[in-house]
Amino acid sequence: MAQEKKIKAGIVGGAGYTGGEMIRILLNHPDVTVSFVHSRSNAGNPLYAVHADLLGETDLLFTGELSNDVDVVFLCLGHGESVKFMESADLAAHIKVIDLSQDFRLGEMVKGRTFVYGLPEMQRDVIRTAQNVANPGCFATAIQLGLLPLAANGLLTDVHTTGITGSTGAGQKLQSTSHFTWRANNISTYKVLDHQHLREIRRSLQQLQPGFSGEVNFVPVRGDYPRGIWITSYLKSDLSLADAVKLYKDYYDGHPFTHVSEKQIDLKQVVNTNKCIIQLEKIGDRLVIHSIEDNLLKGASGQAVQNMNLMCGLDETAGLKLKSIVF
Amino acid sequence: MAQEKKIKAGIVGGAGYTGGEMIRILLNHPDVTVSFVHSRSNAGNPLYAVHADLLGETDLLFTGELSNDVDVVFLCLGHGESVKFMESADLAAHIKVIDLSQDFRLGEMVKGRTFVYGLPEMQRDVIRTAQNVANPGCFATAIQLGLLPLAANGLLTDVHTTGITGSTGAGQKLQSTSHFTWRANNISTYKVLDHQHLREIRRSLQQLQPGFSGEVNFVPVRGDYPRGIWITSYLKSDLSLADAVKLYKDYYDGHPFTHVSEKQIDLKQVVNTNKCIIQLEKIGDRLVIHSIEDNLLKGASGQAVQNMNLMCGLDETAGLKLKSIVF
Amino acid sequence: MAQEKKIKAGIVGGAGYTGGEMIRILLNHPDVTVSFVHSRSNAGNPLYAVHADLLGETDLLFTGELSNDVDVVFLCLGHGESVKFMESADLAAHIKVIDLSQDFRLGEMVKGRTFVYGLPEMQRDVIRTAQNVANPGCFATAIQLGLLPLAANGLLTDVHTTGITGSTGAGQKLQSTSHFTWRANNISTYKVLDHQHLREIRRSLQQLQPGFSGEVNFVPVRGDYPRGIWITSYLKSDLSLADAVKLYKDYYDGHPFTHVSEKQIDLKQVVNTNKCIIQLEKIGDRLVIHSIEDNLLKGASGQAVQNMNLMCGLDETAGLKLKSIVF
Amino acid sequence: MAQEKKIKAGIVGGAGYTGGEMIRILLNHPDVTVSFVHSRSNAGNPLYAVHADLLGETDLLFTGELSNDVDVVFLCLGHGESVKFMESADLAAHIKVIDLSQDFRLGEMVKGRTFVYGLPEMQRDVIRTAQNVANPGCFATAIQLGLLPLAANGLLTDVHTTGITGSTGAGQKLQSTSHFTWRANNISTYKVLDHQHLREIRRSLQQLQPGFSGEVNFVPVRGDYPRGIWITSYLKSDLSLADAVKLYKDYYDGHPFTHVSEKQIDLKQVVNTNKCIIQLEKIGDRLVIHSIEDNLLKGASGQAVQNMNLMCGLDETAGLKLKSIVF
Repeated sequence: MAQEKKIKAGIVGGAGYTGGEMIRILLNHPDVTVSFVHSRSNAGNPLYAVHADLLGETDLLFTGELSNDVDVVFLCLGHGESVKFMESADLAAHIKVIDLSQDFRLGEMVKGRTFVYGLPEMQRDVIRTAQNVANPGCFATAIQLGLLPLAANGLLTDVHTTGITGSTGAGQKLQSTSHFTWRANNISTYKVLDHQHLREIRRSLQQLQPGFSGEVNFVPVRGDYPRGIWITSYLKSDLSLADAVKLYKDYYDGHPFTHVSEKQIDLKQVVNTNKCIIQLEKIGDRLVIHSIEDNLLKGASGQAVQNMNLMCGLDETAGLKLKSIVF
Repeated sequence: MAQEKKIKAGIVGGAGYTGGEMIRILLNHPDVTVSFVHSRSNAGNPLYAVHADLLGETDLLFTGELSNDVDVVFLCLGHGESVKFMESADLAAHIKVIDLSQDFRLGEMVKGRTFVYGLPEMQRDVIRTAQNVANPGCFATAIQLGLLPLAANGLLTDVHTTGITGSTGAGQKLQSTSHFTWRANNISTYKVLDHQHLREIRRSLQQLQPGFSGEVNFVPVRGDYPRGIWITSYLKSDLSLADAVKLYKDYYDGHPFTHVSEKQIDLKQVVNTNKCIIQLEKIGDRLVIHSIEDNLLKGASGQAVQNMNLMCGLDETAGLKLKSIVF
Repeated sequence: MAQEKKIKAGIVGGAGYTGGEMIRILLNHPDVTVSFVHSRSNAGNPLYAVHADLLGETDLLFTGELSNDVDVVFLCLGHGESVKFMESADLAAHIKVIDLSQDFRLGEMVKGRTFVYGLPEMQRDVIRTAQNVANPGCFATAIQLGLLPLAANGLLTDVHTTGITGSTGAGQKLQSTSHFTWRANNISTYKVLDHQHLREIRRSLQQLQPGFSGEVNFVPVRGDYPRGIWITSYLKSDLSLADAVKLYKDYYDGHPFTHVSEKQIDLKQVVNTNKCIIQLEKIGDRLVIHSIEDNLLKGASGQAVQNMNLMCGLDETAGLKLKSIVF
Repeated sequence: MAQEKKIKAGIVGGAGYTGGEMIRILLNHPDVTVSFVHSRSNAGNPLYAVHADLLGETDLLFTGELSNDVDVVFLCLGHGESVKFMESADLAAHIKVIDLSQDFRLGEMVKGRTFVYGLPEMQRDVIRTAQNVANPGCFATAIQLGLLPLAANGLLTDVHTTGITGSTGAGQKLQSTSHFTWRANNISTYKVLDHQHLREIRRSLQQLQPGFSGEVNFVPVRGDYPRGIWITSYLKSDLSLADAVKLYKDYYDGHPFTHVSEKQIDLKQVVNTNKCIIQLEKIGDRLVIHSIEDNLLKGASGQAVQNMNLMCGLDETAGLKLKSIVF
């Protein structure tokens, strides 16, 4: 894409974690210009006053004003805030909207805009023509990527899932469960068997495997590290390991960010990238699926850019060839 | 107990992690004298040459010789090493043996010695009269403490368990999965649905609930912290939360180290103590049991001392009132 | 000491970190009864409602009332709060006071009470007869223990010190620099060359080496772990390494918690104990002194109990034989 | 630069940490093709067999053969190995060599090749015309970047420096000081006042400030995190803070990776980037300089690519616009 035709992007809620990641990705995106970064509380301040790592990379300031001279807007707002924003803001009809909250993931509408669920590995072609996309939840992304190939082949049975998340999943708000002294070297759980992402997960699984009424048991765990989600799911299955691996490789063939590993995986393979890596095991009659992602990237801002790339006709990987932290 | 009648204890395999913890506990135990700490490779060196934190606490040296002038011997050896030791060593018949390996947990015998499974919360009275005790595995202890009250009341159904362990569970051997650069901020799994502790767990559960043939699905996770085990198990149950809490509190009534919390728990409540804390939740028809312990204490050396206290007629908590690290 | 003559202790400010550590130590202290734990905001709640690790160890409640039926009171209050408390509270004259704040460390008086600086390795005999003790600061303790033998021999020259502290040093208040996501894997400094502990340090050094007017340059660093202080100081010195080691060993001879290591040390040797370990190196004409402690124990509550032991005629180590966390 | 003129690069020692980082950067470098990745022990294996995070990014295999059909070779070998490699390998004269070891940093020659010290902020123009570059050490880079502006203006006096490094600085070799259980939550020092990087540091400082004979006291600390170096240096100075900030900003003007922050900095601002951020403080008569970098990037492979960019006439930042990990 030639320089003069760069996509103009606006970011709403640019002072939070996902907003910061959005800025970091878009500043280096070859086909995008960041037109504005909106934050009421930080208007007038340079971006690096909040995102200190951006010192030396941009002199852009936060703004309290919205502009309609953009092609796409990313909403990096809290749950419940996106719908309020959409109801009150005067957004021009031509602007594509990508929302990172959970406000529109179950097919909710606002001001005549319908949102498409933005999981490219499930429905890339639908996203390509979408005007509005609801970006999936972080846990929901990793869990679904572990289950989609089975659902697409009608092979889902009762699922048992453990998910461990880094502290960035809880955002930047100061709270006792994100106090360093408490969380370091500590483990705890929350919303056990009752996490809100189960709704969007179940919706996707039933879309792919109509009539699926099995259980999805999900134990979310607070990990003592900042970034990344580890998922282990298991279920009864007749598939051999070889057949399961083939099924998964076939399903993800052509998807640039989701890969099947035939070796033992570990979380840091994907931290600070937009990738999801999956590993399968078969023990007795149970198929085990491990899937890993960076919760802020493939689980949030990275996938949002992936969706933008699809919606805008760009290379799906543009701006997303990110160097892993590895260690 | 008066000073002149102190129990004389020997430690075999005193240079490893569980051996070190045994020394730390016994040095401060009011009713015990450490008679010898055996380590072939460190014979002649002061204990603090290996366990550097002991500087200033003892001038005891490792020895390569065994003495029969002891009341009890703790075997802190690797799996497979305890049985070899027992076969080759000339241990006087009066000496009580407490083995921390998995060599005798399933009822194995050696040289006419039969080993009792050393889980006090399951069979304290049997341990009180035992001559030889096989100390339970770390994961096995925490998982069983989460399930015993159900099994004792015939209420077990298929169990789904996740367990997260600190790096000390893997011992002091240098290996890639315990390299700091790799393990920091990382998550991985191992022996999924196939961990060796399932054998002793199943044996105990069937002892309490004869005929139990349900599943025990166990996903072991490598955590990125040194100490502690977090267990979450869930199963179908008709019990209300209140009834389940009562069942657990009744079962553990009088057991000084295992407690039921009615608040959300977190792992660091028990780190560096001999305690196990349990928390219950009921979501729909599923009962959730969280149980936590320090893998080196209640999961190894602390429980071994608890067993010794029982076997020697001491207060069950003697030497085990340990200050939690908390943070 | 016989049971009937136990020391009765009260704790004011029992809901904070140092208050919690005080409770943990005193509950297991053989010669002390905890008479009350005062906390205005938590009055009526069980201790374990705040200090969750105490579940199963005590049913004591926080109280909002003070009692004069105690022998000693520990003030675990914020800086500036202790002086306010002393001015407003009606404390009986017979009660010994040990204050953990910095309010009385420079010889301040309140209501006719004079405070003795509570560093046993400097002036144990003075503490033994003191009615009121100002417990030293955490950094101040570790830095001074590294320098006292030199000062006592008039050998101090300009000092260059780096100190790294765990996050517990900043207390339990939620703030951006103790947010887990921020602090994990992070390093930063604060109050560089300008830390308030320099005042009490300089006062002690001049007491031992009258006329000392050299520099004490101190760089405080925020470490990414919860507990422990690492100090490295260096200065020009004519002493050989052997002479320096002898000087330090002689100085600390008979002091049960401070030890000189002739091997390389690491912080975790002392975490969760009341010890300070010192290691010396000589490089060219510079003497290097490393000293380590647990900031909440030897650097706060542990040393406070050590002072109480001295003031009350107990064994200096009573209640303080704490098991190291090691790992 | 047009596609048909891409620089062809070879990497020798591609299985280690710096080799891995080199691969990660060059795979996404717009102007470079990775021609070969040499590793004797891994020849024939795919890169992702060693660098598991590369799964899905390249199918390249390690090779045991060297090729002369390259423009530049990076030596990612251990200290002492680079000189052996250069002596035995048959490297064509046209190939530029960038060595990451310390073998050639003090002006050593091999087979008629002279090496230029590759610190762009000191001598960018010399590097632009160099055929061979010795890449600076990780500590050396961060310390020098904190001192260069002073040296260039003849303002250096005795320097006191503390440096804290992540575990990746010690490479991937399994050793007791990089065992997770030991290193987690731990602090220790090594080579105090005697680190080998002092030689290259002193050489640079004297090049800029001829006749400088002051002290450079350096205390290296092992941090308990994987990546990043924190440096705090201080020295006597007549400069006001404002003048010092101006001096530093002027010196680094036009250098794309080194920036002066006027706010408090923290290490994670630069982790996983090629940047160095500097912050100044003035306390009394002492100027304090904090400088931070990622030891594997600006301290190793990132700076090596920066040097290649300069040597090959590319944009200095090509391939080095890396997304910070931030959290």
